[in-house]
Amino acid sequence: MTERLKGNAVIGQSGGPTCVINQSLVGAIKESANYPEIENFYGALNGLKGILDENFIDLKKEDPASLETIAVTPSAALGSVRMKPTEDDCRKVFDIFKKHNIRYFFYIGGNDSAETASIVNNLADEADYDFNVFHIPKTIDNDLLVTDHCPGFGSAAKFVASALMGDNLDNRSLPGIKIDIIMGRHAGFLTAASVLGRKYEDDGPHLVYLPERPFDLDQFTVDVSEIYNRLGRCLIAVSEGISRKDGQPVFTTGEKDSHGNVQLSGSGGLGDFLMNHLKSKIDGARVRSDTFGYLQRSFPGVLSETDAAEARLAGKMAVKYAVENCTDGSVALKRTGNGDNYGCETMIAELNSVAKHTKGVPDEFINDAGNNVTDAFVEYARPLAGTLPEIGRLAAVKV
Amino acid sequence: MTERLKGNAVIGQSGGPTCVINQSLVGAIKESANYPEIENFYGALNGLKGILDENFIDLKKEDPASLETIAVTPSAALGSVRMKPTEDDCRKVFDIFKKHNIRYFFYIGGNDSAETASIVNNLADEADYDFNVFHIPKTIDNDLLVTDHCPGFGSAAKFVASALMGDNLDNRSLPGIKIDIIMGRHAGFLTAASVLGRKYEDDGPHLVYLPERPFDLDQFTVDVSEIYNRLGRCLIAVSEGISRKDGQPVFTTGEKDSHGNVQLSGSGGLGDFLMNHLKSKIDGARVRSDTFGYLQRSFPGVLSETDAAEARLAGKMAVKYAVENCTDGSVALKRTGNGDNYGCETMIAELNSVAKHTKGVPDEFINDAGNNVTDAFVEYARPLAGTLPEIGRLAAVKV
Repeated sequence: MTERLKGNAVIGQSGGPTCVINQSLVGAIKESANYPEIENFYGALNGLKGILDENFIDLKKEDPASLETIAVTPSAALGSVRMKPTEDDCRKVFDIFKKHNIRYFFYIGGNDSAETASIVNNLADEADYDFNVFHIPKTIDNDLLVTDHCPGFGSAAKFVASALMGDNLDNRSLPGIKIDIIMGRHAGFLTAASVLGRKYEDDGPHLVYLPERPFDLDQFTVDVSEIYNRLGRCLIAVSEGISRKDGQPVFTTGEKDSHGNVQLSGSGGLGDFLMNHLKSKIDGARVRSDTFGYLQRSFPGVLSETDAAEARLAGKMAVKYAVENCTDGSVALKRTGNGDNYGCETMIAELNSVAKHTKGVPDEFINDAGNNVTDAFVEYARPLAGTLPEIGRLAAVKV
Repeated sequence: MTERLKGNAVIGQSGGPTCVINQSLVGAIKESANYPEIENFYGALNGLKGILDENFIDLKKEDPASLETIAVTPSAALGSVRMKPTEDDCRKVFDIFKKHNIRYFFYIGGNDSAETASIVNNLADEADYDFNVFHIPKTIDNDLLVTDHCPGFGSAAKFVASALMGDNLDNRSLPGIKIDIIMGRHAGFLTAASVLGRKYEDDGPHLVYLPERPFDLDQFTVDVSEIYNRLGRCLIAVSEGISRKDGQPVFTTGEKDSHGNVQLSGSGGLGDFLMNHLKSKIDGARVRSDTFGYLQRSFPGVLSETDAAEARLAGKMAVKYAVENCTDGSVALKRTGNGDNYGCETMIAELNSVAKHTKGVPDEFINDAGNNVTDAFVEYARPLAGTLPEIGRLAAVKV
């Protein structure tokens, strides 16, 4: 057993918020109290930016009771950042860590955060500076490698599944064609989760389009018409990230973020484009679209209890692994059972295996037509979303 | 005391769904069991349309236990309809009522439904047909006359307030300018409810634009710039129904519904229009917009307990008033106390006083600048939204 590192620790949050990202933060803070090796535990405000600006807060001064309220508060309590650091930035970060005797760095985020953590770790290795870095996974997109699923996904999945349950009732009550645009640039897991609340045979979403399959506008029209003619209504879940066969987005505002990604969220453009297309193709149909937007990642009070517990565990285990195992890595979730026997434990993934690349929805979760998901997906995702609202229908015995 | 009417009853649901419209339905069904005078209790599928098609179900055959699940199910369990009946339709309805010995008619809906109820009632009067009709108020817009507030508003207000709480946290975590478009064609009550979750001094929404005040794009830019320069971020709640000084909508898709209203919901157009405007005016700002859409009226599991109880009461009292008082009318809510002493009781409003006209947010609820709401509004609306999620902030003691 290697000797435990003694010194200060820093934790930061990065990328798009989730409803349980603060569970991981609080899990790490509370676990750190068990280790006298961690002398000071600093929070970096707005992730990497806070580190570069040496904008630190003292997490040991936080009241343990109010930490429990913060744990159930959506969005990054430390503030977040969207920042792809340069090599130079990473060297600066490392210098600041040395200056403050930082021996532990915990970074809660997606694959970009894992990459940042990995680069800083390599710099420490090169300089022979004893240092343990842990990435704590978080993303509503559920697109990280190695881990069975990502903290943050389950609660977003519960929101989306609930939203579609409600919208299905709405669509059944006032029939028409309804398009719901759901977050997920490259990975369709969240859009796929739209089906998790289906209960009766004619429940929507009746069609589900993921970015993992090329989107064909003509086939879309055929698909929708078939359902609409049969049921008199059609509810459609569409990922914001769908693209055409040639790889181009179906619709974009043109704006790009600092990672060079075109803006998809925070605009109703795609939904309106598809709505206007269907209006022009299906005579007399009442067509509407909603783009769920940021509500999916930050709506308070709609939490998957499973997701919340796992996010807490991921934060706790990052600290435990870093101190007790004296190593670096990324916390990964490993499923131990399915259905009623659902369970999860953590393991250590190599930082490099999580950095850079992402995964999409696997083939076995998508139907052959590419316009719906399979039972295998439901089995995979159902336990992650936790308890869904109970709803019912009238027996409706005709007079 | 007039003799009680004996015969059959019909109930229907109309207009845009709410999360508690089925509470009123179940309240009426359960109350009807107390009156042997109501021999058969029919549900009309899709409101007026179901009556005209004689598409009735037997509500006495519903299982009382599953009715409780239906009560917490959003959207109209009987199906709804958007239909402005002609005089001829109303005569037909009356003929069908006579044919089926319908002596009680309960119509859950907004002011259009009250008007329909009133017309049918007048036809019965003219024909000397003994008949009691009751309108049961429902609308997330909260725009009905006489009643203190409308069943359906509180739960939608809870959804919107929660959404803005989450979005405020999101906006604080990744600062920028965010526009949220909220339902409400003529009445801004629901948009005003966006403020109900504000907790800390710098919490958003920082600006609130209601349809009750003319919207000026230049003043909007000035308002947003001022907040953005001061806080480094700005969260804005905008009613979908805002219009310019000349009365024209700020943005519309051009489509009209059967009532001749231009389509506002089910499109991200207004939000995108305002977003693009601000992008062009405020250099370098990250501007996003979300249009909440139908989620506001049909999201399951986010219910105001107060709203649910009052919607149930309204359904129950409609039946009680119609049978015991042997009269017609609209159930109205009358506030008996505020704050911790909040309470409500029902009274009978005249059908004509509720039909046709609506009310907007009164002057004392809107600030002088017309870009926010007053404390008086918060006092009015806070009890209606019920319990909001608890959230917290780090103490954030600087190192």
